[in-house]
Amino acid sequence: MSERKPWAGRFAEQTDALVEAYTSSIAADQRLLAADIIGSIAHVRMLGRRSIIPAEDANKIERALQDMLGEAERGEFHLRPELEDVHMNVEATLAERIGPAAGRLHTARSRNDQVATDFRIYVRDAAADAIHAVHGLQQALLDLAERHIDAIMPGYTHLQRAQPVLFAHHLLAYVEMLVRDEERFWAALEAADVLPLGSGALAGSPYALDREAVADELGFAEISRNSIDAVSDRDFAVDYVYAAAMAMTHVSRLAEEIVLWSSAEFGFIKLPDAFATGSSIMPQKKNPDVAELARGRTGRVIGDLVALLTMLKGLPLAYNRDLQEDKPSLFDAEAVLLPTLAVLAEMLPRIEVDRERMRAAAAANFSLATDYADYLVRKGLPFREAHAIVGKLVRVCEDRGVGLESLSLDELRAVSPMFAEDARDITLESSVASRDVPGGTAPARVQSALSAARKRLAEARAMLAGDDLKDDDDA
Amino acid sequence: MSERKPWAGRFAEQTDALVEAYTSSIAADQRLLAADIIGSIAHVRMLGRRSIIPAEDANKIERALQDMLGEAERGEFHLRPELEDVHMNVEATLAERIGPAAGRLHTARSRNDQVATDFRIYVRDAAADAIHAVHGLQQALLDLAERHIDAIMPGYTHLQRAQPVLFAHHLLAYVEMLVRDEERFWAALEAADVLPLGSGALAGSPYALDREAVADELGFAEISRNSIDAVSDRDFAVDYVYAAAMAMTHVSRLAEEIVLWSSAEFGFIKLPDAFATGSSIMPQKKNPDVAELARGRTGRVIGDLVALLTMLKGLPLAYNRDLQEDKPSLFDAEAVLLPTLAVLAEMLPRIEVDRERMRAAAAANFSLATDYADYLVRKGLPFREAHAIVGKLVRVCEDRGVGLESLSLDELRAVSPMFAEDARDITLESSVASRDVPGGTAPARVQSALSAARKRLAEARAMLAGDDLKDDDDA
Amino acid sequence: MSERKPWAGRFAEQTDALVEAYTSSIAADQRLLAADIIGSIAHVRMLGRRSIIPAEDANKIERALQDMLGEAERGEFHLRPELEDVHMNVEATLAERIGPAAGRLHTARSRNDQVATDFRIYVRDAAADAIHAVHGLQQALLDLAERHIDAIMPGYTHLQRAQPVLFAHHLLAYVEMLVRDEERFWAALEAADVLPLGSGALAGSPYALDREAVADELGFAEISRNSIDAVSDRDFAVDYVYAAAMAMTHVSRLAEEIVLWSSAEFGFIKLPDAFATGSSIMPQKKNPDVAELARGRTGRVIGDLVALLTMLKGLPLAYNRDLQEDKPSLFDAEAVLLPTLAVLAEMLPRIEVDRERMRAAAAANFSLATDYADYLVRKGLPFREAHAIVGKLVRVCEDRGVGLESLSLDELRAVSPMFAEDARDITLESSVASRDVPGGTAPARVQSALSAARKRLAEARAMLAGDDLKDDDDA
Amino acid sequence: MSERKPWAGRFAEQTDALVEAYTSSIAADQRLLAADIIGSIAHVRMLGRRSIIPAEDANKIERALQDMLGEAERGEFHLRPELEDVHMNVEATLAERIGPAAGRLHTARSRNDQVATDFRIYVRDAAADAIHAVHGLQQALLDLAERHIDAIMPGYTHLQRAQPVLFAHHLLAYVEMLVRDEERFWAALEAADVLPLGSGALAGSPYALDREAVADELGFAEISRNSIDAVSDRDFAVDYVYAAAMAMTHVSRLAEEIVLWSSAEFGFIKLPDAFATGSSIMPQKKNPDVAELARGRTGRVIGDLVALLTMLKGLPLAYNRDLQEDKPSLFDAEAVLLPTLAVLAEMLPRIEVDRERMRAAAAANFSLATDYADYLVRKGLPFREAHAIVGKLVRVCEDRGVGLESLSLDELRAVSPMFAEDARDITLESSVASRDVPGGTAPARVQSALSAARKRLAEARAMLAGDDLKDDDDA
Repeated sequence: MSERKPWAGRFAEQTDALVEAYTSSIAADQRLLAADIIGSIAHVRMLGRRSIIPAEDANKIERALQDMLGEAERGEFHLRPELEDVHMNVEATLAERIGPAAGRLHTARSRNDQVATDFRIYVRDAAADAIHAVHGLQQALLDLAERHIDAIMPGYTHLQRAQPVLFAHHLLAYVEMLVRDEERFWAALEAADVLPLGSGALAGSPYALDREAVADELGFAEISRNSIDAVSDRDFAVDYVYAAAMAMTHVSRLAEEIVLWSSAEFGFIKLPDAFATGSSIMPQKKNPDVAELARGRTGRVIGDLVALLTMLKGLPLAYNRDLQEDKPSLFDAEAVLLPTLAVLAEMLPRIEVDRERMRAAAAANFSLATDYADYLVRKGLPFREAHAIVGKLVRVCEDRGVGLESLSLDELRAVSPMFAEDARDITLESSVASRDVPGGTAPARVQSALSAARKRLAEARAMLAGDDLKDDDDA
Repeated sequence: MSERKPWAGRFAEQTDALVEAYTSSIAADQRLLAADIIGSIAHVRMLGRRSIIPAEDANKIERALQDMLGEAERGEFHLRPELEDVHMNVEATLAERIGPAAGRLHTARSRNDQVATDFRIYVRDAAADAIHAVHGLQQALLDLAERHIDAIMPGYTHLQRAQPVLFAHHLLAYVEMLVRDEERFWAALEAADVLPLGSGALAGSPYALDREAVADELGFAEISRNSIDAVSDRDFAVDYVYAAAMAMTHVSRLAEEIVLWSSAEFGFIKLPDAFATGSSIMPQKKNPDVAELARGRTGRVIGDLVALLTMLKGLPLAYNRDLQEDKPSLFDAEAVLLPTLAVLAEMLPRIEVDRERMRAAAAANFSLATDYADYLVRKGLPFREAHAIVGKLVRVCEDRGVGLESLSLDELRAVSPMFAEDARDITLESSVASRDVPGGTAPARVQSALSAARKRLAEARAMLAGDDLKDDDDA
Repeated sequence: MSERKPWAGRFAEQTDALVEAYTSSIAADQRLLAADIIGSIAHVRMLGRRSIIPAEDANKIERALQDMLGEAERGEFHLRPELEDVHMNVEATLAERIGPAAGRLHTARSRNDQVATDFRIYVRDAAADAIHAVHGLQQALLDLAERHIDAIMPGYTHLQRAQPVLFAHHLLAYVEMLVRDEERFWAALEAADVLPLGSGALAGSPYALDREAVADELGFAEISRNSIDAVSDRDFAVDYVYAAAMAMTHVSRLAEEIVLWSSAEFGFIKLPDAFATGSSIMPQKKNPDVAELARGRTGRVIGDLVALLTMLKGLPLAYNRDLQEDKPSLFDAEAVLLPTLAVLAEMLPRIEVDRERMRAAAAANFSLATDYADYLVRKGLPFREAHAIVGKLVRVCEDRGVGLESLSLDELRAVSPMFAEDARDITLESSVASRDVPGGTAPARVQSALSAARKRLAEARAMLAGDDLKDDDDA
Repeated sequence: MSERKPWAGRFAEQTDALVEAYTSSIAADQRLLAADIIGSIAHVRMLGRRSIIPAEDANKIERALQDMLGEAERGEFHLRPELEDVHMNVEATLAERIGPAAGRLHTARSRNDQVATDFRIYVRDAAADAIHAVHGLQQALLDLAERHIDAIMPGYTHLQRAQPVLFAHHLLAYVEMLVRDEERFWAALEAADVLPLGSGALAGSPYALDREAVADELGFAEISRNSIDAVSDRDFAVDYVYAAAMAMTHVSRLAEEIVLWSSAEFGFIKLPDAFATGSSIMPQKKNPDVAELARGRTGRVIGDLVALLTMLKGLPLAYNRDLQEDKPSLFDAEAVLLPTLAVLAEMLPRIEVDRERMRAAAAANFSLATDYADYLVRKGLPFREAHAIVGKLVRVCEDRGVGLESLSLDELRAVSPMFAEDARDITLESSVASRDVPGGTAPARVQSALSAARKRLAEARAMLAGDDLKDDDDA
């Protein structure tokens, strides 16, 4: 084995088997294979064009790499663990196929700038995939909202019924969160979109490289400005995992609500049988496992973020082997995030909503108390006094076990003479309709928010597709 | 006490003293005081203009709030713990000064949208302060780099001497990190720059508010688009703490290097006495405490980030009291970050650099081995073969305890006949100069990177000042 | 200022003011003051007894320290920030009071072993306080369980009603968790219960110390076995914070349930007005803020744990200034934990339980389905078949919108002829009573679990009191 | 597929494929297979003995399970993903082999208590494995310490040379840490050593189980006391991961030192070629990758701890599907911990120590300054004055660029007349020998600490072996 090590020159002893296993990055590297070959193709083309290596060798190398890329894409290229990492696998295979000319591929680069390049290609794609998945969940929320555009539910604060809101309005709150998540993934994508190749081990390259051309070919927006930073920087990976942690945190809130809503106590929704599971012992059970797992897996991604930050903390420049740990954490975050977004996007549209039960819940528990107070304010009372008066009414009703709507006008007037006949007009519908400010739950506002969100989503999808397109053209 | 509670209407019992203490946010709220009053001023003006409350009352309230703002800014306004939070303190003081009209201030808002507004004002400013502090540290790095523009140090990978680099080039790697930190704080600032006021408790307001006018007056770039999200969203706070965690992680790497460099073993720098501390027992000690504390406190900010994400995870919509914990974590992160950036910015320019020792270290340990390999490549050898040949040379030298430069040309040629007289031209200077690609450590490249960084910093400062200016104009 | 620095000898320059502020530990140190003085008293007595310093000086120092301890305990001893830390404050005050003999106190010790000693004294007490507070919450749970010993509630899995359980049984689950928390705090206490004094800066002391005597006097169970470890080890602090994080995690689960139970949907409990808060805008609201804050603050303690682990990670031996950050994190964890346990212990006994509503919920939603399946098993069916049969019954009932109990015997027999008249005996009471295994919810089992828990608590309290006593005797 | 679902009775629709994939625990479950079968064997035996199921069926089931256990141990039993989890795989295979009697196996248990049992068996073994691995690293440290029992190195504080210590003493500090780690793993083992089987879904079982007998057969020390807690409790898993996080944190400190020591600047050790790796570009490099990866992977385990705590936080009782995430985090922690301990245990004994260089470093930089101060104290000076005098001497020497040993007696006496001829006796050896207190670095103390550690290790190994034995006997 050891003969194959590209750095064996100064070593008198073979690498210990435990060390081989411990330092191996093969498991993670399989996912970098395509990126590694693509990066090598761009590199070798440039070396040839710039006559840093003979054009003939460059061509030979490129052709062999193109073959290998095809094999990689067809899943036919398997990494051999004894060859340390993806880079050495590619180079060794190259050597087997074209002989010593293969040794020219690594001219003017180091594994340090190479792996940074590979990983940036990977993360750029991963961020685009995440944005795509975020769009899918937005779509599902918008569709669900539209289907139930006039359903009224109790809005909660402190998990206490607070004021009636449109169910669609509630769902649109999640769309807002996901729009911010999208921005974070764009930020990660842009952070990754800088080519480090040409930075060598850490000091830059002594060859007359055309870094801009390689960047263009690989679809990178810029080249790195400092070679030491270029091989030490993993910010883009942390940015991705942070974006994933935030997205999962948002999703965990939705998941919590799905669990609550599908409980017997709330009873607002029914999950489709295809998206629930049963119990091995209790024949009646139908459990919201998908939502529970989404909630539970959020911790994983927060843990991945901690892993990355802790790994980076206190590392001197430039490259240290600790950095190899960037990949398992990011891959883990991705492996949680994408299926979570996908399964929720699939499940949401198939949720059955019990509008009657939602509406009944919205009407109970004095949810219109604020409306009574606002009524008094409109009649001229300072808000604080109005609030106190309605507080007293609530206490009276609670003692009698009835709702505000069951008080007679005389009873209302007994507490405040400002109550008049029109106090009877306070209903769920009037309450919701009255929140007619930008961002409010009035039906017209919600309808226009929904339209605006659809328009934005269409534009965002076009932008993402355009970005993908650009990559395709370039690569 | 309980009479003063604004919500006492329906309660039959006073709040338990333990509960008062447990739920109190007074300690955190003191820092929101100015923001709270400023927000109230904008709110009440709009209420008056829109005739939602009598213009006369609006004027009276505004004048009193302006007085209170002056007192707050002079540190003369102290919150009373028994009044629950900052909002109730302001309102109670107002009532003491202008009577029942004070009760009109809370018309058309809730503490939920109010505290979100206050906190966003705070975070917007905190992010600007962070950017300012990041600029300060960039400046210090640039000044130090410029002062030692021609000093050569060993570049490290795996903390092993790798290749010679300019000390200035190494410092510029940190400038790159800080530029990315800046962007993250701008992202946090923009995330905070959305006005939630007008969202009420969660459903929006039934009054004909002019939300855009309030946003303009408070210098917010936008108004929130969904009232439920507006009172539940703390992403902007997490974004700030994430930016702080990343900045501290970068700083911890610099801190680690300062600790290493000032060790007897490295001996690259001497800390000024004013920035070091001694030992109570060992008379000879001079310790790099500032760098150690910067490194150690990084954990705090990562912990703050975990605290926020964990707090948010699984929370149903809309406002829950858990959200109150957003402030201690953010304040803690800020209290670590700003002094760390400031003290390092002060210390760096006063560090004494031992260029001779750096240079000697750069020359030792075969740091030029890559240059020998690249030499052979230029003579036509594939890189892999060149690498293997120099590996053998290194092993020979190690056995004899000498450096590559002490091998005679004959000895070199014995291993590879491609070595010629010009192999003698491989020096520290030639090595550094040869890395003449964009981002490389060649002196001309470093000089121009330095100039570019200075220009960028000047522009960034102007942008930040402009942003501050805008706020001042508006507020 | 600088003259007062105990290590100023070799320094030519005063400490920079920014550095003073940045490195100061005064805020944290105030809490170590008593421990610091107590430790110094034991140290100086031993120095005197061993004639390491003149007996007369030892006496003079001890008397002055005793005075200072009194002042500290009465809150009259205020640390002066310019004196760097608690140790230097004590020593400087000593010097002011007794002159140069004060300079003998620091003989044979370093701030490294001194602060480790102080902090261990602190953590030992903090762990005992935590155990005490955990006992308080256990007591509250036991009292509440006893008061409602026969109340039946729906047991949940996946937040779906699963099987009826006794409310007391449910509460006892939390007692079990708290018993484990107790053990973790005991482990932290024991980890802290090792005296580092005598380890010097890191190498041990060249004086003929009687370390065992000092340990006895300070009530430490052992002396440290390795001086380098002794000044570098903060495991005991992490152990405490881990115990706190686990305890808060348990409490957060209880808090979540309190929030759920007090929602309109569940309606199982009513919080006393004294333990709830209202809304500034919605007159009807009564919010479970205490539980929400307990849940939200859990994140803080998890963050504190991350802060400590991250701080320690990768630190070379022995003492590094990073270790100073051990205290803010631990103090923060303690400041969250103790009031949380206390306020819940106060609140729980005053919760009003709506047994009727609990019972009704337990009876609904096919909670007895498992009992029907077990019935068939007892009649001879393999469990899997029994489960499938009852699953079908449930589906039939769901379609008809009725419960299992409303099916006639004929209807039952139509699905399985094994059903007989005694199938009618399946009731909430029979279900609960049937779980008559150790740890099961059968009333007799729960009653005896309650008694056992009370007995265990009494013993644990006696053990803690005994441990405190020992400390008091010794110190 | 859906027909095979054991809970399909009440479901009208097949499980969605996305949901199957999302909820599947097969990947993790493969590792629980043996535990699951072993647990089932004990369960079914007891069911037979107690006549809860026909003895004949019990025998048939047991025989088939024994076969399957053999297959599992030989790696011949592969889980089928479509069968949801390990439990259903075992049961389905059983049904294929023995027919409907297989349906009796799940009598009187639920997957909730079953998976808790399986996982506890796993964690108990994992904790024992961890203790075994910790012992291995202790052994390696002790061997290395013994081999270099008289080597002197500079002891560091703040990474500044502080006082000379024995290299063996320094290594023993790590042994102390590992002894504490051992205790934490024992705590985790004991936390896991409680049998939950018999708790049913959450309420206990209606069958007359003999839980104690099952516990005995499976080697559990106790049975759980509360069924709701038993199915909700994952403390034992968190305890394990916490122990792993602490152990890795300790190891990361050693790893950091290995990186430092093998740097050109320190040059204290040389890694064997078999435990280092080279560079693809720099022919001279020999990198301490193993130590770097150990350090970097520490973050992973801290992240796993965060993942678990965050997952548990705020979960209502009893079982929720979130709990499934306990396994990936624990498995990940184990997969980092065990190989890290093993590879370091293998590497340490083969490290080459450069005693001369260590000694030279220990002698430089005024490491004996404290000894000079202590000398003056022994002559009668208060420590503070002695410290100040030596501080001045250091400053004089620094200005002249010499060490304290090069000052003439006259020069010493010029600063303090207390210096006499015997001041010349202060040497590295005298310094080290003088720290002759328990835990100090005096050679005799270190030698006896080494012996004590060896004795303790032998006892601990015997205890662990005894514990393993017990398990073997029982199972």
